[in-house]
Amino acid sequence: MLKVAILGASGYTGLELLRILAQHPRVVVVYAGSRQHSGRKVEEVFPFLRGAYSGLIFGDDEPSTVEAELFFCALPHGVSMDVVSVLIKQGKKVVDLSADFRIKEQSVYERWYKEHTAPELLKDAVYGLPEFYRERIKDATLVANPGCYPTGSLLLLLPPLKEGLIEPEGIIIDAKSGVSGAGRKAALETQFVEVLEGFHPYKPLSHRHTPEIEEVLSHLCGGKIEVSFVPHLLPVARGILTTVYARLKKGVSTENFKRVYEAYYRDEPFVRVMAEGNLPDIKYVRGSNLCDIGIKVDEGKGLAVMVSAIDNLVKGASGQAVQNMNIMYGFPETCALDAPPLGI
Amino acid sequence: MLKVAILGASGYTGLELLRILAQHPRVVVVYAGSRQHSGRKVEEVFPFLRGAYSGLIFGDDEPSTVEAELFFCALPHGVSMDVVSVLIKQGKKVVDLSADFRIKEQSVYERWYKEHTAPELLKDAVYGLPEFYRERIKDATLVANPGCYPTGSLLLLLPPLKEGLIEPEGIIIDAKSGVSGAGRKAALETQFVEVLEGFHPYKPLSHRHTPEIEEVLSHLCGGKIEVSFVPHLLPVARGILTTVYARLKKGVSTENFKRVYEAYYRDEPFVRVMAEGNLPDIKYVRGSNLCDIGIKVDEGKGLAVMVSAIDNLVKGASGQAVQNMNIMYGFPETCALDAPPLGI
Amino acid sequence: MLKVAILGASGYTGLELLRILAQHPRVVVVYAGSRQHSGRKVEEVFPFLRGAYSGLIFGDDEPSTVEAELFFCALPHGVSMDVVSVLIKQGKKVVDLSADFRIKEQSVYERWYKEHTAPELLKDAVYGLPEFYRERIKDATLVANPGCYPTGSLLLLLPPLKEGLIEPEGIIIDAKSGVSGAGRKAALETQFVEVLEGFHPYKPLSHRHTPEIEEVLSHLCGGKIEVSFVPHLLPVARGILTTVYARLKKGVSTENFKRVYEAYYRDEPFVRVMAEGNLPDIKYVRGSNLCDIGIKVDEGKGLAVMVSAIDNLVKGASGQAVQNMNIMYGFPETCALDAPPLGI
Amino acid sequence: MLKVAILGASGYTGLELLRILAQHPRVVVVYAGSRQHSGRKVEEVFPFLRGAYSGLIFGDDEPSTVEAELFFCALPHGVSMDVVSVLIKQGKKVVDLSADFRIKEQSVYERWYKEHTAPELLKDAVYGLPEFYRERIKDATLVANPGCYPTGSLLLLLPPLKEGLIEPEGIIIDAKSGVSGAGRKAALETQFVEVLEGFHPYKPLSHRHTPEIEEVLSHLCGGKIEVSFVPHLLPVARGILTTVYARLKKGVSTENFKRVYEAYYRDEPFVRVMAEGNLPDIKYVRGSNLCDIGIKVDEGKGLAVMVSAIDNLVKGASGQAVQNMNIMYGFPETCALDAPPLGI
Repeated sequence: MLKVAILGASGYTGLELLRILAQHPRVVVVYAGSRQHSGRKVEEVFPFLRGAYSGLIFGDDEPSTVEAELFFCALPHGVSMDVVSVLIKQGKKVVDLSADFRIKEQSVYERWYKEHTAPELLKDAVYGLPEFYRERIKDATLVANPGCYPTGSLLLLLPPLKEGLIEPEGIIIDAKSGVSGAGRKAALETQFVEVLEGFHPYKPLSHRHTPEIEEVLSHLCGGKIEVSFVPHLLPVARGILTTVYARLKKGVSTENFKRVYEAYYRDEPFVRVMAEGNLPDIKYVRGSNLCDIGIKVDEGKGLAVMVSAIDNLVKGASGQAVQNMNIMYGFPETCALDAPPLGI
Repeated sequence: MLKVAILGASGYTGLELLRILAQHPRVVVVYAGSRQHSGRKVEEVFPFLRGAYSGLIFGDDEPSTVEAELFFCALPHGVSMDVVSVLIKQGKKVVDLSADFRIKEQSVYERWYKEHTAPELLKDAVYGLPEFYRERIKDATLVANPGCYPTGSLLLLLPPLKEGLIEPEGIIIDAKSGVSGAGRKAALETQFVEVLEGFHPYKPLSHRHTPEIEEVLSHLCGGKIEVSFVPHLLPVARGILTTVYARLKKGVSTENFKRVYEAYYRDEPFVRVMAEGNLPDIKYVRGSNLCDIGIKVDEGKGLAVMVSAIDNLVKGASGQAVQNMNIMYGFPETCALDAPPLGI
Repeated sequence: MLKVAILGASGYTGLELLRILAQHPRVVVVYAGSRQHSGRKVEEVFPFLRGAYSGLIFGDDEPSTVEAELFFCALPHGVSMDVVSVLIKQGKKVVDLSADFRIKEQSVYERWYKEHTAPELLKDAVYGLPEFYRERIKDATLVANPGCYPTGSLLLLLPPLKEGLIEPEGIIIDAKSGVSGAGRKAALETQFVEVLEGFHPYKPLSHRHTPEIEEVLSHLCGGKIEVSFVPHLLPVARGILTTVYARLKKGVSTENFKRVYEAYYRDEPFVRVMAEGNLPDIKYVRGSNLCDIGIKVDEGKGLAVMVSAIDNLVKGASGQAVQNMNIMYGFPETCALDAPPLGI
Repeated sequence: MLKVAILGASGYTGLELLRILAQHPRVVVVYAGSRQHSGRKVEEVFPFLRGAYSGLIFGDDEPSTVEAELFFCALPHGVSMDVVSVLIKQGKKVVDLSADFRIKEQSVYERWYKEHTAPELLKDAVYGLPEFYRERIKDATLVANPGCYPTGSLLLLLPPLKEGLIEPEGIIIDAKSGVSGAGRKAALETQFVEVLEGFHPYKPLSHRHTPEIEEVLSHLCGGKIEVSFVPHLLPVARGILTTVYARLKKGVSTENFKRVYEAYYRDEPFVRVMAEGNLPDIKYVRGSNLCDIGIKVDEGKGLAVMVSAIDNLVKGASGQAVQNMNIMYGFPETCALDAPPLGI
């Protein structure tokens, strides 16, 4: 059994790791870190997990003293890099769910986040999007788990961009996320009463997932690709629906998209390309590690509309983190991730 | 007191007319038509209206026999035109909430809807968007009340297009509507269990509000303007948030937008231009006839993001219909429409 | 115009007072107190009120220096009594929305809340349930506005208890409230993600609205009446549905209840007794000052089931406060309170 | 691999059987019956199941011609009994999710439902509540899967009634159910817009789960036990919270309840007795086969408040049906049912 530790285990992504790993036959969670809940039983803080983790108690240990082989770091951006740096030096493996190692270009990271204290790790950190970096993940010591919005956007954009179906200029990403993306904390603007029956954009053209998307697109497709990214807050708990608008290259049809997506994703266990005329719904993927993709092309106007749906806490965070772990350790990639979505 | 009749009074727009008119000091609802509920008390079918319409009973009379001066027609598309035609011949005034008289070009209407049986009325029907057609509404006999999506889109697009802040090509409208837009009827896809925790696009690039938007834009701005329109279904009861993407003309700044919107809407009682940095939320307008507008410009990328929020049942339908009536009869334009939104 | 001040104006009940008073033709809000938002425009903190209060800025003045005739105190329990005491000494009139003056018996108050610092005011404070204390409210200087749960429970229980239709022993109140009842503040347990799709009881048999209900019942019906009260948290923003179970006295029928409720409430503008077979829904009263009442009696089992629905922020708080003000100042009692509920 | 067929597979309970069985290692679903969707792929009708049932197509075959060993009948009450009768004669095993075989007393069934066409099967049909009928289920040919409300009520009431902690008279059950309990069908009253922000009781004291609860209580506890049952409709998709009020027998304390519940449920895999001071939330069990139980006793008033939470589609229907199948075939009882609840 692989011994794993979760740091930052009482946030939504930590919690979701606990939920998913409870079903994993090859893994045992030996440590769940939470400064806030230190000393309390996991089952007491999260009553829905009762029975799954009897005995496990939240700790606030120095990470370097925790005996585990693999660490899931679900700590805040800026905090994670210091901890990860220590763990890597100790020879541990890490799947980091923060943004700290996602962006390779240090100056870009520092412009959008803060000063980087472990830039020497950036080169070897592998961007944990298995559909495009699987081979490198296999041998990785440090996996930078992708952001939720980037996951939904990149799975949509990479195939048509790499295959030249769309122009790399003028790409618009109109994304809509459920509230769990804001994290598990007391905040007025995410109170139930404030969110229910509401809907609004936030940080238009200035959200910091933008540089992450741009860097991966540029890296994999060549050239310097920029996108215009506008996120919105959906009154649901889980889910991101991403609607991307891009200019078609001449002569490209719906059929071309269909063929390209299928070529890229035919053997992927978690990406489902929908039949023509069908479009994703976040409901169809809720609670699962799936990403659904649908397209609609208007050849006359030269416009492609590409749509993806993921569960932001699963494929957009903790599910993808477990998928990465499965790849790193040679477990079946769908291990603990093969239950169908909850549906209703 | 002006005697008004509501045809199709048991759908959501009819119901909303009843709610709003209950507060109107110059109007009495003398007739509420509903085939389905004929013979039942309004208060029994809609318990929340108890006390507001004691005595009023749903009828299924021949519209031509109803004694009223003004008719709100909230009938289905295709059904409305026959009824309206008869009423107009009788010398009645009509505010028609269907799509039947919104599109002037008969062939366009017929391509998207069905054969038109009263095309002779199209020329004199006035498009009931008061902010742009107020003078004509004053003298109108037949007002074609705008669609919900067109209202949110046109109030956003007309000022910058007319003033040349944005290019008329390549406009993208990513709209999100609450479920009441689908009407009051038993349908599986709008069941509570199917909608809650869901979100999805529908009819991308092929929704029939597209030609309505395009015709009004072309008519008021000159040239033939086309838009790419993608609606989505939001898990809320009321509200449309419209996010529009357009290419900036050279040298245009946020400040230019601000000034243009304020010039157009300063004296408008129902359009609120938000301060820089603020963006609309459907929650801020729920239950009211307001339209909130916010903008974000990226001069570097040459992109304008314009956002509006309306309540689809009020400014997007019945509130705007009452506003049109107020204009037609010289009542204060905000009469029965000046309560603040419900907020929470 | 009556000059009114609102203390604690940025909580949900303060906010709701602002929403309602925006429509009041005889009142001007001259002061809105909020420590937290002091110096900010009301319209900026609550964007949905834009246009209703241009110029009004949240203040943090010493209440004794505020020039107003009537004060709505929407301050926390325990804080309110000190402020009210000063205002009353200055000769101001006060409608207090806290619990501080609702319970007459000082020792009971102090057992459930804290030490009372202005017990001398308890005797003259009038319990602001107009349906039962209207005459006293007319001449009151200090009105103690009822709690949300007590309003829904008392309107249900008082008529049958006073008329001897039910036994005073063994009364069970199973109440369900929307989340706005928890107040406007950042808290983890009322985050959107925590509440959506959830439902649970809280403080069963130990909620502090219990002694308030018991004291009023005992006062108006004679004897010492006790109730068993179990509240639950509903995943809605507004509304309380109260289901009361009581033992029927011998020979009492549905018809008896119907007649008693109608006798008590026939002339009440805000209480609606539903027709036999119909039962209340919080949806039918949302946004209004109404209280709907329905009953179901099982003569065989000797059980009465009585159900009421109110909007906790309106009839359960701010609407009732305005109703009390209307009575105190001889305004029409429904002034600013006569709009129908939002319905959908 | 056990070959199972699902009849009525496109309703919510059929759908939920498909979701759960997709994870079962010892079972293959060889047939999914649906008149309405006959000929369509399961994955097309339920997009969230894509990948789980490639190849499975809804059929409308004569049940007697379907080659399967075990049948889950998720057909409407009154329809099921005819089909089950044929299958049993063929020597098949059946878990019936309708009400047709739950009530042993034919006259009682017929008073609340309709004429029974297969009364000869009533005697041998086993009531499928494993916590109380496990031994009989092992050898059953026909299991009558309990109703959703009865499951939540019986698990709460049976231990204290059998052990004499509460009086058998005057029991009140105030239950609240999510909307999926109303089934998967187009209906106006369960439209999203009608349900959101609403809450109301329905069929108070006259819901037909009442006789089912009463018969099982009477059968297992002796005597003729009656209950007063009032259900309410919650604006959530899944979940039933049941609040039961009963009179304490003299001298009974919280501690007694705790001990009795633990004695009954210590070895039960799906019933969790909560620590003192904690109460169930439907959120904690959503998507799982769990039943959470909490209690609060007021010795002074002689009242016990018992609360349970289940997912109405899982422990209240399809999960319990799979649990019954596991028992009938000697599979581990938690097989396909051991994933933690979704939580958020």
